[in-house]
Amino acid sequence: MTETDKQVITGDLDLLITNGLVLTLDDEDRRFKPGAVAIRGSEIVTVGPPESILPLHCPARTIDASGCVVLPGLINAHTHAAMTLFRGLADDLPLMDWLQNHIFPAEQKLTEEWVYWGTLLACAEMILSGTTTFCDMYLFEHKVAEAAKTAGIRALVGEVLYDFPSPHYGPIENGLRFTESLIEEWQGDPLVRIAVEPHALYTCSSSLLGKCHDMALRHQVPLIVHLSENESEVTEVLAAYGSRPVEHLENLGILSSQLIADHCVALDMHDMELLARREVQVVHNPESNMKLASGIAPVPRLLEMGVNVALGTDGCASNNDLDMLDEMDSCAKLHKVTTLDPTALPASKVLRMATRNGARALGLEGKVGRIVPGMLADIIVVDFHKPHLTPLYEPVSHLVYAARGADVRHSIIHGRLVMEDRRILTMDVAEVMERARSYARILRP
Amino acid sequence: MTETDKQVITGDLDLLITNGLVLTLDDEDRRFKPGAVAIRGSEIVTVGPPESILPLHCPARTIDASGCVVLPGLINAHTHAAMTLFRGLADDLPLMDWLQNHIFPAEQKLTEEWVYWGTLLACAEMILSGTTTFCDMYLFEHKVAEAAKTAGIRALVGEVLYDFPSPHYGPIENGLRFTESLIEEWQGDPLVRIAVEPHALYTCSSSLLGKCHDMALRHQVPLIVHLSENESEVTEVLAAYGSRPVEHLENLGILSSQLIADHCVALDMHDMELLARREVQVVHNPESNMKLASGIAPVPRLLEMGVNVALGTDGCASNNDLDMLDEMDSCAKLHKVTTLDPTALPASKVLRMATRNGARALGLEGKVGRIVPGMLADIIVVDFHKPHLTPLYEPVSHLVYAARGADVRHSIIHGRLVMEDRRILTMDVAEVMERARSYARILRP
Repeated sequence: MTETDKQVITGDLDLLITNGLVLTLDDEDRRFKPGAVAIRGSEIVTVGPPESILPLHCPARTIDASGCVVLPGLINAHTHAAMTLFRGLADDLPLMDWLQNHIFPAEQKLTEEWVYWGTLLACAEMILSGTTTFCDMYLFEHKVAEAAKTAGIRALVGEVLYDFPSPHYGPIENGLRFTESLIEEWQGDPLVRIAVEPHALYTCSSSLLGKCHDMALRHQVPLIVHLSENESEVTEVLAAYGSRPVEHLENLGILSSQLIADHCVALDMHDMELLARREVQVVHNPESNMKLASGIAPVPRLLEMGVNVALGTDGCASNNDLDMLDEMDSCAKLHKVTTLDPTALPASKVLRMATRNGARALGLEGKVGRIVPGMLADIIVVDFHKPHLTPLYEPVSHLVYAARGADVRHSIIHGRLVMEDRRILTMDVAEVMERARSYARILRP
Repeated sequence: MTETDKQVITGDLDLLITNGLVLTLDDEDRRFKPGAVAIRGSEIVTVGPPESILPLHCPARTIDASGCVVLPGLINAHTHAAMTLFRGLADDLPLMDWLQNHIFPAEQKLTEEWVYWGTLLACAEMILSGTTTFCDMYLFEHKVAEAAKTAGIRALVGEVLYDFPSPHYGPIENGLRFTESLIEEWQGDPLVRIAVEPHALYTCSSSLLGKCHDMALRHQVPLIVHLSENESEVTEVLAAYGSRPVEHLENLGILSSQLIADHCVALDMHDMELLARREVQVVHNPESNMKLASGIAPVPRLLEMGVNVALGTDGCASNNDLDMLDEMDSCAKLHKVTTLDPTALPASKVLRMATRNGARALGLEGKVGRIVPGMLADIIVVDFHKPHLTPLYEPVSHLVYAARGADVRHSIIHGRLVMEDRRILTMDVAEVMERARSYARILRP
């Protein structure tokens, strides 16, 4: 056999991940055991059994994933990344005491610099625990975008907007202008996209919500809002507008597939029907909802009704970590006990929530969330050679019910190896932690 | 200053853990930051600021716990250790389908050898995630005792007893004799103690429960039973005896502080009053209760009523891990959302459940569960130098809400270093995992 017969194309691949158990999460839910994923530039070129790929290519770099599971990177569809700085600052308090006496005063101290380093800390934690895309809402979001870019993680970010003055931009008119400038600035970036993000119905007038919606439509970017997070929000919105939060948005003409609604805990049947009919993207945050005692979102019902439900951790002040593997576990278990049905929300559905549903919610369907040729290479390699992941009957069960962040060994985002053998290659993690500690010392001397 | 003035007593200590943040969990909840713990043989000699200890001693070995939190080892108060072999074998199924078509057939394959290696795998996982004592109920418990001894972990174990023939001992008479022989054999062992363990009220006649109770009384060992795990158990016991499970045990005269009752999910107020009045030891297993959709135990109420509630993971078939740090997180969050009260079950109470309450439940109060001079040295060192544990305001918050098994760095049990820098010193973990895999291949070729 000549070189030509072997069809080796030297240097045609940048990265080959081989010998792992590959979960594609594609339409046929194909698995390759063992499998290989070939990457060129930012894209997945091919996926299949190693013997169908290896003889044809000569990759610049090969990752041996023996004993590991290879799957699409996890998508944290709702967080406030820089709130890592407030992790464990105050817990187990009544909501208003927690917010008004601890979180809001701490947020008054925030600067661009704090948000940049706090977000980098979050990116480190997320990469170390298998997240390759996150969706953020906070202050000083230009620094969040910058930190995501530094970390090499995919992100959808947007400045939080509300009626009252912001510690960042001052009056709301500035906030709207700032959001518009962010959209223009980050146009076409391969990793970072911008969304328009009114905070919630109890902090944003109908007029502000309308302006945000118009801006999102005009620029064809997602609109993101906290929605129906708990019963007291419903009561407040009912008192103000005579309609429940979801209805209020329907009345304003804002419900659409471009809207990402975070939490959606306190829903009645009519709310759920509206969310389904308008194809709203729902993000479920079980651990935050549990810790803040917000209530339990009717996720199995929403999924049955055809609503796309993604998964998020929310911020570190109310979780208190950003570990999506852990979040999947809580999600799968919470809905079983809530419905008293052990078949409610099986592991495979929860894994979809954390990958493909997240991609769809964030407007990234067809780009990430699956291992499919032509899609972007956002891939994680999880080490199953651990006592707590032994023996192995079903990898999806282990991913949801037993694996934790620390089991993620390598992470590839946009074709780039950002973590290798648990070492993050894009930042100096020790420096990031030291920065976070220095801010914490200011907050609580 | 002469040598005598310095009062150095060379070789008087076997182990000194220093420079960590020490949480004693003692009556005054004392903390030392930094602190040191001095160990001689199996016992804690002293705890305090390093400067009060270091000049007086010359330890054979010193562990530098800088950047770490030092606390009593965690107590997993209810598990079926060898069920690690069935981890992920079947999930997300109706209870009876899961039991009858998956778990029971798998258990028919069990041998002494399977239980020994399955338990060693559990011990590896438990040591790696901070557990220093576990309480077990299963088959072939002499091999569980042997595995615990090999692993160097503290254990309270007992053969599961029920009316029908056991795959291990055959008819129940043999089971009772076997239990009695186990009690005699392990009398006085520093690590392993034996309990009498009737399975549950729906599998044990009143006569068997009575015999078990008598045996436990006669030998002054704990009596352990699954109790009121779900509503269908209540219905079944009501139909059979005309009383609810807790009442039924009261009628049999079995409720006492020597009884360890696992689960206690389906309780009415009268049940709770009985458990409180008789000082029964309750073990809560939130993740298993969630995954099997058993229901939610009224833990905050039980604690308010003065019941001692410990924490356990249950077996790997219904969890699917043995990580007590993770279990604490689920416990703290579940009861907040269930009661819609963010102040329900604060982190500090949950940490007590996993340490001191566990010790009390298992009859080890005054021996383990606190770092107090004269008590046994069961101590873990948790590495907080991690992005997901940064910054640090309150160590108990991080332990409950953010730390995971993989953060535990060293483990000392009965004064012996059993894990150093995440390497288990008492067994060949690779061999243990390979054994477990070989059994899994038999179960599912």
